[in-house]
Amino acid sequence: MDLADMVKTIARDAKHSAGQLRSVKSTEKDAAIELMAAHILSRTDDIIAENQKDVAFAKEKGMSAAMIDRLTLNQERIMSMAAGLHEVAKLPDPVGEVLGMWRRPNGLLVGRIRIPLGVIGFIYESRPNVTVDAASLCLKSGNAVLLRGGSEAIHSNLILTNILSQAMMEADLPEKAIQLIPSTEHEAVRILLSMDEYVDMIIPRGGEELIGFVSEHSRIPVLKHFKGVCHVYVDEFADIEMAQEICFNAKVQRPGVCNAMETMLVHKKVAPSFLPGMVEAFTKAGVEIRACEKSLTIVPGLNMADEMDWPAEFLDLILAVKIVEDMDEALNHIEQYGSHHTEAIVTNDNHRSQEFLDKVDASVVLVNASTRFNDGFELGLGAEIGISTSKVHAYGPMGLKELTSSKFIVFGSGQVRT
Amino acid sequence: MDLADMVKTIARDAKHSAGQLRSVKSTEKDAAIELMAAHILSRTDDIIAENQKDVAFAKEKGMSAAMIDRLTLNQERIMSMAAGLHEVAKLPDPVGEVLGMWRRPNGLLVGRIRIPLGVIGFIYESRPNVTVDAASLCLKSGNAVLLRGGSEAIHSNLILTNILSQAMMEADLPEKAIQLIPSTEHEAVRILLSMDEYVDMIIPRGGEELIGFVSEHSRIPVLKHFKGVCHVYVDEFADIEMAQEICFNAKVQRPGVCNAMETMLVHKKVAPSFLPGMVEAFTKAGVEIRACEKSLTIVPGLNMADEMDWPAEFLDLILAVKIVEDMDEALNHIEQYGSHHTEAIVTNDNHRSQEFLDKVDASVVLVNASTRFNDGFELGLGAEIGISTSKVHAYGPMGLKELTSSKFIVFGSGQVRT
Repeated sequence: MDLADMVKTIARDAKHSAGQLRSVKSTEKDAAIELMAAHILSRTDDIIAENQKDVAFAKEKGMSAAMIDRLTLNQERIMSMAAGLHEVAKLPDPVGEVLGMWRRPNGLLVGRIRIPLGVIGFIYESRPNVTVDAASLCLKSGNAVLLRGGSEAIHSNLILTNILSQAMMEADLPEKAIQLIPSTEHEAVRILLSMDEYVDMIIPRGGEELIGFVSEHSRIPVLKHFKGVCHVYVDEFADIEMAQEICFNAKVQRPGVCNAMETMLVHKKVAPSFLPGMVEAFTKAGVEIRACEKSLTIVPGLNMADEMDWPAEFLDLILAVKIVEDMDEALNHIEQYGSHHTEAIVTNDNHRSQEFLDKVDASVVLVNASTRFNDGFELGLGAEIGISTSKVHAYGPMGLKELTSSKFIVFGSGQVRT
Repeated sequence: MDLADMVKTIARDAKHSAGQLRSVKSTEKDAAIELMAAHILSRTDDIIAENQKDVAFAKEKGMSAAMIDRLTLNQERIMSMAAGLHEVAKLPDPVGEVLGMWRRPNGLLVGRIRIPLGVIGFIYESRPNVTVDAASLCLKSGNAVLLRGGSEAIHSNLILTNILSQAMMEADLPEKAIQLIPSTEHEAVRILLSMDEYVDMIIPRGGEELIGFVSEHSRIPVLKHFKGVCHVYVDEFADIEMAQEICFNAKVQRPGVCNAMETMLVHKKVAPSFLPGMVEAFTKAGVEIRACEKSLTIVPGLNMADEMDWPAEFLDLILAVKIVEDMDEALNHIEQYGSHHTEAIVTNDNHRSQEFLDKVDASVVLVNASTRFNDGFELGLGAEIGISTSKVHAYGPMGLKELTSSKFIVFGSGQVRT
């Protein structure tokens, strides 16, 4: 069977399974997820053995130590996968939730209820635990899933999806609701992206190159985020100490992730009291600062920022710093360079915070809190399958509800239209 | 300026206007919509004069009488446009609605509020009143709109959008939030569909050819419906008279629209008592019936259906009829041939209706009511800009809420992530 036929068969089976999943009860889905957890624990040794093949190959290829660490599974990480499954099983089932119900003047009772999307194509890189996370979140929300992990994790992903499918079968649920596309060829992704007859949504999770490729080639709606160029604006009415703690956390706590701060905007009135201590703290933590000209008059000796630094997603211990004349300049800067991901203001003034919340176009806008809180778990969604930075379907962290749609149901007693 | 530059300038101006619209108050938007109504009434003669140019050209081109009727504006239709604007002004503003607010264990207060999508590209055919409808719904939901009407209505659309922009300016709102793409070239649509930097969503409204073209070429998310192949399933526990009234209404009341019934499925036990009277009523109303073999044993002399009739969207006084062994056969038929638009069951049995509601994958599923109720006004959404038959973002009739997204707002008191 050639590649196109293989992907098509997988996608068609997924669609068929999605039809069966539509009317499965919560208790059945949760039982399957618990069974997955049990099987993953009982097969720890097999999983590690398969994972070692991927790790050996990665070392042979000369992948970085950080990448190899991300790829490696050990007993602790496998236990944490199983724990994650228990958490998903405990979450409320989004499917069937009644979003509203109302009576029309002609007596029709109209309701809107949450339904699964159908088939989700999930294209991702590296960490094998994502395979288990994504599969369980899709099942919990009543969707079939087509998983396409990175080639570097192929052995790990194969054994994990085999275990998951096995659990589905034992739980009397359609085993083909969870399938891995076993080809490591790039072409397999391109074929998947053309299967709009069978696949309802594509979620890519990975670097800019992967996401660009998926967006360009997909005939299926894509939920994606491109970049996180996140700002903290320290307002003239900020509490200086709070601002320093928030900015430090936003930059330093985990600099390689999308919700880390990349540019700090500082109101000119507060710059003299705020900047020197802030710069000292950052310097101690190894942060390289690229500052605007005005900042240099307050803290001499800093590296000067150039025009390339304002739109940059450094994903590293590098920070652009700019002093602004007023809040309008901060808002304009964010409008021009922000990526609609996460934006924060530090201020004690209610007018300022309200205006910031109203005017800033980002999926998460925070007052007096770190940008690092843009995360499905941290915001209380219970889970996260990704963060969307475009507004269609979902904007911001996506939990179980964002993996659903809704349909109208109508109860009549013979009504016709006149 | 060449075509690409022109469309790009229009799209960029729309994006800029969308930014300004984000924080406009409901009262300001409503005042602008009321002003539009007043100006449309006061310029009735000018509108009719421009419309006459389109009508004259349509006659010259030999367009059908029905098409010319759809195109023609008269005093009554212009009054009805203005009345439509008053209705939109009176609807509740979806923007700013708080969809939920909750406290996290660390004290963060997290809320989710409704926001505009940004810029909507609306591509449509024929009726000039759609120009006014679409523009007012987009403004009410805080969005800028790029209108691309059919070439046959270009003079009508130009004067109407000029009047709408004028009202925007007088109401101190960004006039470029409502723009018509003045080119009648096909290429203008293709260029618009590539402007994903500026346009957030595309809504096509028209025939299958238009919608196919838009889906194929768009880099922007498209909300569309392809076809309405709608079924009524008359169950063995149906009230015969009710079933006849519902089926008659679903087929005959307005056969040329997407929510009309195209295939009638009849349980074999009820067929002998239901079909003869039903066929008689349809025949009197001029409906051509294409029946399955079993139907012919009950009502001899009917035309025989062939395999092409089951997936057909007739949009005409033609009906396919099939007798099924049981409800499962009806469900399978709908799964195979339905278009996820509208499906109805007539039954007095609660188990049957519940199973039908659960298992049928359609944007609107009805019990004991006509398929013709799949409509934003009829279902109580207050307005309708189209019907979506795919599940991403919206499924079913789209009102004002479906023209919005939501963002997270977070109120902290210095929280950082640990």
